[in-house]
Amino acid sequence: MNAPPRTLPADFVATSTRLSAEVTRPFPASRRIWVQGSRPDLRVPLREVVQTPTETNQGPEDNPPIPVYDTSGPYTDPDATIDLLRGLPDVRDAWIAERGDTEQLGGPSSAFGQGRLQDPTLDHLRFEHRRAPRRAKPGQNVTQMHYARQGIITPEMEYVALRENLKLDELRADPRYEKLLRQHRGEAFGANLPDHITPEFVRDEVARGRAIIPANINHPELEPMIIGRNFRVKINTNIGNSALSSSIAEEVEKMVWSARWGGDTLMDLSTGKNIHETREWILRNAPVPIGTVPIYQALEKVDGRPEALTWELFRDTLIEQAEQGVDYFTIHAGVLLRYIPLTADRVTGIVSRGGSILAKWCLAHHQENFLYTHFRDICDIMAAYDVAFSLGDGLRPGSLADANDRAQFAELETLGELTKAAWEQDVQVMIEGPGHVPLQMVQENVTKELADCYEAPFYTLGPIITDIAPAYDHITSAIGAANIGWYGTAMLCYVTPKEHLGLPDKQDVRDGIIAYRIAAHGADLAKGLPGAQIQDNAMSKARFEFRWEDQFNLALDPERAHEFHDQTLPHDSHKVAHFCSMCGPQFCSMKITQDVREYAKAHALSDETRALDAGLEEKAAEFRNTGGEIYKPV
Amino acid sequence: MNAPPRTLPADFVATSTRLSAEVTRPFPASRRIWVQGSRPDLRVPLREVVQTPTETNQGPEDNPPIPVYDTSGPYTDPDATIDLLRGLPDVRDAWIAERGDTEQLGGPSSAFGQGRLQDPTLDHLRFEHRRAPRRAKPGQNVTQMHYARQGIITPEMEYVALRENLKLDELRADPRYEKLLRQHRGEAFGANLPDHITPEFVRDEVARGRAIIPANINHPELEPMIIGRNFRVKINTNIGNSALSSSIAEEVEKMVWSARWGGDTLMDLSTGKNIHETREWILRNAPVPIGTVPIYQALEKVDGRPEALTWELFRDTLIEQAEQGVDYFTIHAGVLLRYIPLTADRVTGIVSRGGSILAKWCLAHHQENFLYTHFRDICDIMAAYDVAFSLGDGLRPGSLADANDRAQFAELETLGELTKAAWEQDVQVMIEGPGHVPLQMVQENVTKELADCYEAPFYTLGPIITDIAPAYDHITSAIGAANIGWYGTAMLCYVTPKEHLGLPDKQDVRDGIIAYRIAAHGADLAKGLPGAQIQDNAMSKARFEFRWEDQFNLALDPERAHEFHDQTLPHDSHKVAHFCSMCGPQFCSMKITQDVREYAKAHALSDETRALDAGLEEKAAEFRNTGGEIYKPV
Repeated sequence: MNAPPRTLPADFVATSTRLSAEVTRPFPASRRIWVQGSRPDLRVPLREVVQTPTETNQGPEDNPPIPVYDTSGPYTDPDATIDLLRGLPDVRDAWIAERGDTEQLGGPSSAFGQGRLQDPTLDHLRFEHRRAPRRAKPGQNVTQMHYARQGIITPEMEYVALRENLKLDELRADPRYEKLLRQHRGEAFGANLPDHITPEFVRDEVARGRAIIPANINHPELEPMIIGRNFRVKINTNIGNSALSSSIAEEVEKMVWSARWGGDTLMDLSTGKNIHETREWILRNAPVPIGTVPIYQALEKVDGRPEALTWELFRDTLIEQAEQGVDYFTIHAGVLLRYIPLTADRVTGIVSRGGSILAKWCLAHHQENFLYTHFRDICDIMAAYDVAFSLGDGLRPGSLADANDRAQFAELETLGELTKAAWEQDVQVMIEGPGHVPLQMVQENVTKELADCYEAPFYTLGPIITDIAPAYDHITSAIGAANIGWYGTAMLCYVTPKEHLGLPDKQDVRDGIIAYRIAAHGADLAKGLPGAQIQDNAMSKARFEFRWEDQFNLALDPERAHEFHDQTLPHDSHKVAHFCSMCGPQFCSMKITQDVREYAKAHALSDETRALDAGLEEKAAEFRNTGGEIYKPV
Repeated sequence: MNAPPRTLPADFVATSTRLSAEVTRPFPASRRIWVQGSRPDLRVPLREVVQTPTETNQGPEDNPPIPVYDTSGPYTDPDATIDLLRGLPDVRDAWIAERGDTEQLGGPSSAFGQGRLQDPTLDHLRFEHRRAPRRAKPGQNVTQMHYARQGIITPEMEYVALRENLKLDELRADPRYEKLLRQHRGEAFGANLPDHITPEFVRDEVARGRAIIPANINHPELEPMIIGRNFRVKINTNIGNSALSSSIAEEVEKMVWSARWGGDTLMDLSTGKNIHETREWILRNAPVPIGTVPIYQALEKVDGRPEALTWELFRDTLIEQAEQGVDYFTIHAGVLLRYIPLTADRVTGIVSRGGSILAKWCLAHHQENFLYTHFRDICDIMAAYDVAFSLGDGLRPGSLADANDRAQFAELETLGELTKAAWEQDVQVMIEGPGHVPLQMVQENVTKELADCYEAPFYTLGPIITDIAPAYDHITSAIGAANIGWYGTAMLCYVTPKEHLGLPDKQDVRDGIIAYRIAAHGADLAKGLPGAQIQDNAMSKARFEFRWEDQFNLALDPERAHEFHDQTLPHDSHKVAHFCSMCGPQFCSMKITQDVREYAKAHALSDETRALDAGLEEKAAEFRNTGGEIYKPV
């Protein structure tokens, strides 16, 4: 564990130990701030966007900073020291240790993990500062759900409460935010969104299974977050090195890139070589929860032959990954033997990789899915490390034609049965959902999931609402995602423009993430999440006042907003111009409105029609006499 | 009118008379086909995408061609001769002439039009083959609504009926399409979508004012189309040369580009120099209806001073543009004096350019909006050329904060009153809508519009559902657009990624259009428009069968789909590969499913569970013995 410093292969070091500037560049006019919790080591990071003042005739008027939810970890903090070789600092190690219900093992307990550790040909790939894994002491259960059900508020629960609140109480007490805090009444479809998220509310939601905090005891580096429909809608991103391309170095950089743009969690779907070592690098440097689909790796261990999969091999894989720190596992335990023929007449059969592997296994053995028959054994493992279930929808539709069919819903009903089973062992659960669904059939998915799965958090892939737009599936799916998020989905799995066509590159990942942040935020606004509209209001005010830099800085993607503006109006002077390129300097509606408003104010026009109607002629003459310029010199 | 051939300025010819290859390149595996109507000169163009056969063990199986709605005019037809200097061939001239209710004028009757024609400094800019304008004979009304109300089915009405049907009856009679025609039940929110669109249905919808056919008698080049919620949802695009950039040549190319990607109509929002001449070039080459906001040009005529606008000048502008052939005018006649103070406390005041110009005029004169007081005079002009109203929402919200407020809805109620007035003169009307609206407040806009404006077609700009994503507003707004289209909006005005930031370039226009075609098609699917799912089903079948070329060809943007696939798998052999880059050759869920299905079929597995459960062991052995490869060599 304490080997002397080694030299990594030149190509690895070059790309991976020095992240590229574009993934670590701080956001403009932003600072990382901390909300202090009830104990010294409980400090919750937020990002705060500083605004410029409004220029008025009475001099500058302050515009207060806007706090935003930040998934980027220390990477965007100029004061943080990043050393990929050492990994991120622990956030949770002390919390886990002091609960006293875990033991530090001497090394990995999975056969596979031991083998990889002892293989000298992997030395050059191995993350050096590995910790020995932790595991629950015999007879102990270390899940957040278990603690919650005991009435214990963990530091993780307090952390997510502070994180979700985004300083809202402080803002409410500050008169500078009064107008910015105004927002429309939402339609929450039964979600319960309190004005203030208390740690006790978090505990209660986790205890009921209505929310999960994915936080493996072997991933102490993560900044805890919560997934549940009574909290902010979250987004998941996927990375993976397929057999055709990619490398460890690329995967680590992609993880940081994903966290930068707003991925709340990340699934590592690698199927190529060295996925064990890649995963270690990712986990040790990941501020966000990491999920996997263990059956992918299990399949590699049997050379891609699904029929050769066994429970013993799969079990070893779960332990291997749980001891590395994977926070949630996709488990396709609902692909039952009797459901497989329901897919035979589909237009697109089974499109889930996991689903098709298990279907093939079931048919080859004519036995029930071993993930189903061993479900309680799996729960034992999940409970010993606090890995959350993401119960996979192996029979999700791969086309509009197959949406909401019997195969899909039969599996969903089984996922409900499994949810109950997992909860009996206090294991956290979320439920995966589709996929490809036309708009009018989206809500049924949520309604049925909430009913069949007892309100366990729903986690959907899109859905895309039409099949005919490959190369634009971040958009086809963001439409479905915004709607399904609004109806009650807790986390949205992103889709990139390359879906159905190829492997996403960096720009595709960024495009996919921003599309999904739009969807998630649109859902929060629609549900009426308290405080959700503050950033929109600040943006709108900046827009109306031609504060261009503030508009860029408040944007979900400040860099691209700035760049797009520069394409038409590149000069610095344009950043303070009282016009924009859409209309040009002679003709700007915003400017005209400002004149109208100033005039209305100056003449004490209220919004009562009568006040305006009185004395119109006199006011008209005044207005004409002032010249009523459309714009004034900057 | 018959001047000898002239030489245009070198820069103009170079860019404009030879359209760039990228705007005229035919779509892959596509041909332009015609549906013959009841008279020889009534031929409705569609595009048909030819598919490759499915390879099966029994040899190739035919996949039938898929007809798609085509807005691109002759530009994508390799057999068409394009000569921008002469303009497009007339589609409707004979139809208009034979109605006998119009007269050909000697030249433009507007003072401005005459002045431009006589100005020798404009010779080099002028479109050469101008027709003399037509106008209704005194006492005649030449609108499609007028004919419809007389019980007359015009060729235009028959044309749009055939166009909307997309050969659906023929397909229904052809067994090759049986599975492709399956689709889910829609939720149409009161829309009435017949299985077969008859010319009589079109007439009836136009007569009731529930749909419009924008088709100025001076724009005979256009291929008629219909806007109404009982037809396919349409999309509008905007172009315009602002004072800061652009040229005539660029505008013509942009119009063709917009039609290519699927813009059903196009608004020319030019505010710069020579907009009269630009418009002529655009109209003479436009296969789609063209709209304008005449107040923009009127304002230029008074050097940008709104208070200097007069009815006489505006009237002359309407006639000028009507005689050029503009098909619909945005008229902000609902911005009433008493509504203006309702905007004073808004976060973003008045953001509509037209709205703010009229607000300023009203305040300066303390008189009621002259578009309102002269509304019947405007109707007289509209009726004489068949220009449709697009009643402008000058008080639409410019931020979520201002959505659905009293100012917006007060104006909408007035637009309802104006709709009634226009209909009294048989003038066609559509109603403009927002803008910036959070998801949960979108439907109220449609419900209120349908009620207040007597089901006149709704035409909305987005709406964008969050303010915080500049550079991605094609996405923020496509989400709102898909929803509002589903609820009943007839046409969606596109938004590009540059909205709020700068002027869109070609790629922005393409991105905006495809985002909106997704929204419009998503709405059609959700409403349950008959035949809407055929292209999705064909795509899904091609996807499942690894027919890569067919997937590209059936895509909304075949070129980008192909290009994205090539980025990961560039070789031709990959286009027939039975795998894709997402999983790589060893591991493909689609392939596994195909195996599962083939197995299920070979063993006559029905979707009855019992049939499967019987004799499982025997089947298992068989399956293992076949080897069950995940993929077979290509």
